[in-house]
Amino acid sequence: MFKERIYNFSAGPSMLPAAVLERASADLLNYNATGMSVMEMSHRSKVYDEIFQSVKEKLRKVMNIPSGYHILFMHGGATGAFASVAMNLIGENGKADYVITGNFSKNAASEAKKYGAVNIAYDTADKNHTYIPEQKDLKLTQGASYLHYCANNTIFGTAWKYVPTAGGVPVVSDMSSCILSEPVDVSKFGLIYAGAQKNMAPAGFAVAILNKDVPIKTLGYTPKILDYNMMIKEDSMPNTPSTYNIYILGLVLDWIQELGGLTKMAEINRDKAKILYNYLDSSEFYISPAQKEARSVMNITFKTANEEMDAKFVKESAAAGLANLKGHRLVGGMRASVYNAMPMEGVAKLVEFMDKFERDNR
Amino acid sequence: MFKERIYNFSAGPSMLPAAVLERASADLLNYNATGMSVMEMSHRSKVYDEIFQSVKEKLRKVMNIPSGYHILFMHGGATGAFASVAMNLIGENGKADYVITGNFSKNAASEAKKYGAVNIAYDTADKNHTYIPEQKDLKLTQGASYLHYCANNTIFGTAWKYVPTAGGVPVVSDMSSCILSEPVDVSKFGLIYAGAQKNMAPAGFAVAILNKDVPIKTLGYTPKILDYNMMIKEDSMPNTPSTYNIYILGLVLDWIQELGGLTKMAEINRDKAKILYNYLDSSEFYISPAQKEARSVMNITFKTANEEMDAKFVKESAAAGLANLKGHRLVGGMRASVYNAMPMEGVAKLVEFMDKFERDNR
Repeated sequence: MFKERIYNFSAGPSMLPAAVLERASADLLNYNATGMSVMEMSHRSKVYDEIFQSVKEKLRKVMNIPSGYHILFMHGGATGAFASVAMNLIGENGKADYVITGNFSKNAASEAKKYGAVNIAYDTADKNHTYIPEQKDLKLTQGASYLHYCANNTIFGTAWKYVPTAGGVPVVSDMSSCILSEPVDVSKFGLIYAGAQKNMAPAGFAVAILNKDVPIKTLGYTPKILDYNMMIKEDSMPNTPSTYNIYILGLVLDWIQELGGLTKMAEINRDKAKILYNYLDSSEFYISPAQKEARSVMNITFKTANEEMDAKFVKESAAAGLANLKGHRLVGGMRASVYNAMPMEGVAKLVEFMDKFERDNR
Repeated sequence: MFKERIYNFSAGPSMLPAAVLERASADLLNYNATGMSVMEMSHRSKVYDEIFQSVKEKLRKVMNIPSGYHILFMHGGATGAFASVAMNLIGENGKADYVITGNFSKNAASEAKKYGAVNIAYDTADKNHTYIPEQKDLKLTQGASYLHYCANNTIFGTAWKYVPTAGGVPVVSDMSSCILSEPVDVSKFGLIYAGAQKNMAPAGFAVAILNKDVPIKTLGYTPKILDYNMMIKEDSMPNTPSTYNIYILGLVLDWIQELGGLTKMAEINRDKAKILYNYLDSSEFYISPAQKEARSVMNITFKTANEEMDAKFVKESAAAGLANLKGHRLVGGMRASVYNAMPMEGVAKLVEFMDKFERDNR
């Protein structure tokens, strides 16, 4: 039983800034003297349209998205989004290159196989996804419609430190667990997509940022809600979008802007991760499975020497108000997801706990 | 500028009970001493699983859903849901019967054409969807996989007063704008589905209530998020569902239970509609386009003698705190959506306004 808010290291859905939740709570019954909650607004109303357009504008500004890119709000999270990538971009009898560096990139490739020929350009499964391949090792296919990769691997705690290229073929990136964590040169991408529930908003939608020059080759059986042409034509509203969840994204973007934008956000995130990694590197009690040069700034994986000790760590940390530190079953051990909303104090508390736990159990 | 909550007659997203919003607001930063918002909970966590299972149980109880039915929470609203109906039930080279009584049933039929042969069993377009066909007039097809109809036509203000049958073929009903408004004999249906944003919760998901005996014949290219077998196997969580929105549905179901369940809810809804229809029938200033025997209890359409007067009505009613009374462009005039959360006082205020408007403009 916690009277105060705790530090929640969940991989997603995950922490939201307290300031955002306070704003949302204050506005819940009557938003901006409209006499209604944002939850209750018609998506076709003037007042909601203003919110919706402002969220798009804020996202464009915060991420510095060029005007040559569409911003789409799609149903279905990243799993809906990676289906829509293939259904709209691979084309009839088409093919695409997928790099597998973790679980979601594997799922994305497996879903894409329903829609065309999938070439695995690289697979880091040989070392349980503890590393990221080099550009020179990617096996690209002649005539591929796009190259797909996942920029940050939530489960394995690795991240790409460069944007791969594919000789002019559009590069598609799943940024679900790193979007808004640092500045990104959007112009390098054909498409960026991300599920909402890590760095953006409550679960229930995905953002797609699509270069207007990427050829859209929608397959005939693509459902309306996953059809890019439909989404573009109807400004993400062929049907009712996740109106309230999108409004929360607007509040999160305001919060990022007030902090100093993505440059400052990245600095804070690097500082948080550094404290944790420095501690891990200084300890002989904890092991950090991800290779150093591939370490994620968002998801930090670590283990003790055995599973019993890991279980003890998870249990005791939860009781101390450090929630959801259990690692994914594919990796085991622990995982601290330190997305934007995790304050520095949360990381400091975690390191303090880890240190005490080490001393008590060494 | 409204300091108090107003009466919002939006067709969807629409009003939520004030008690629900108050509860949500109080819990927003720290749900039940967990130290976190429901928005921030991992969908795989114990605490969220308890919420999720309880919402399913409450829905089963409130709607009296037999144990032979799955309850699924799907992404993508009703537009996602009607695509999934066809992708999972029509079957390879299959066919299905669709009754068109309004805009959404038309959209559903048009989407289904991507997946199989669609027979239009009846179309009320001849009289701009002001009526509901009789059972004997439905042209059913031999070998159809299912019969699809929309129980309440949001735009046209009509509703089916009986459940059509199709000689043992599963009956599929879109109940987006009438679910939870009255008791329903679920056992008559192969499948009931509904978008959340009218009588259930904030927009962003759909509920599907599926008879376990209905043959699932999922087409090979069905995306994971629309695949019934996947949804059943993973208990609606092949990926992160709209966790927060589903939690709000739980609060709405509590509110219905406290009122006295669906029998009482239906009584209140009938009373509200009666006041409006009685007034319309007593007036020579307003016209009610829907045929009397087909009138919806949820969406009540009416017009004055001309468009200028309609526009004046919409403008002046909005200023008086009666929001979103503009009718859909396919019908024109006005529409009062009086879903569960619209209190009797809202309807009384509307009738009072209509009466004054009539006297001022007659």
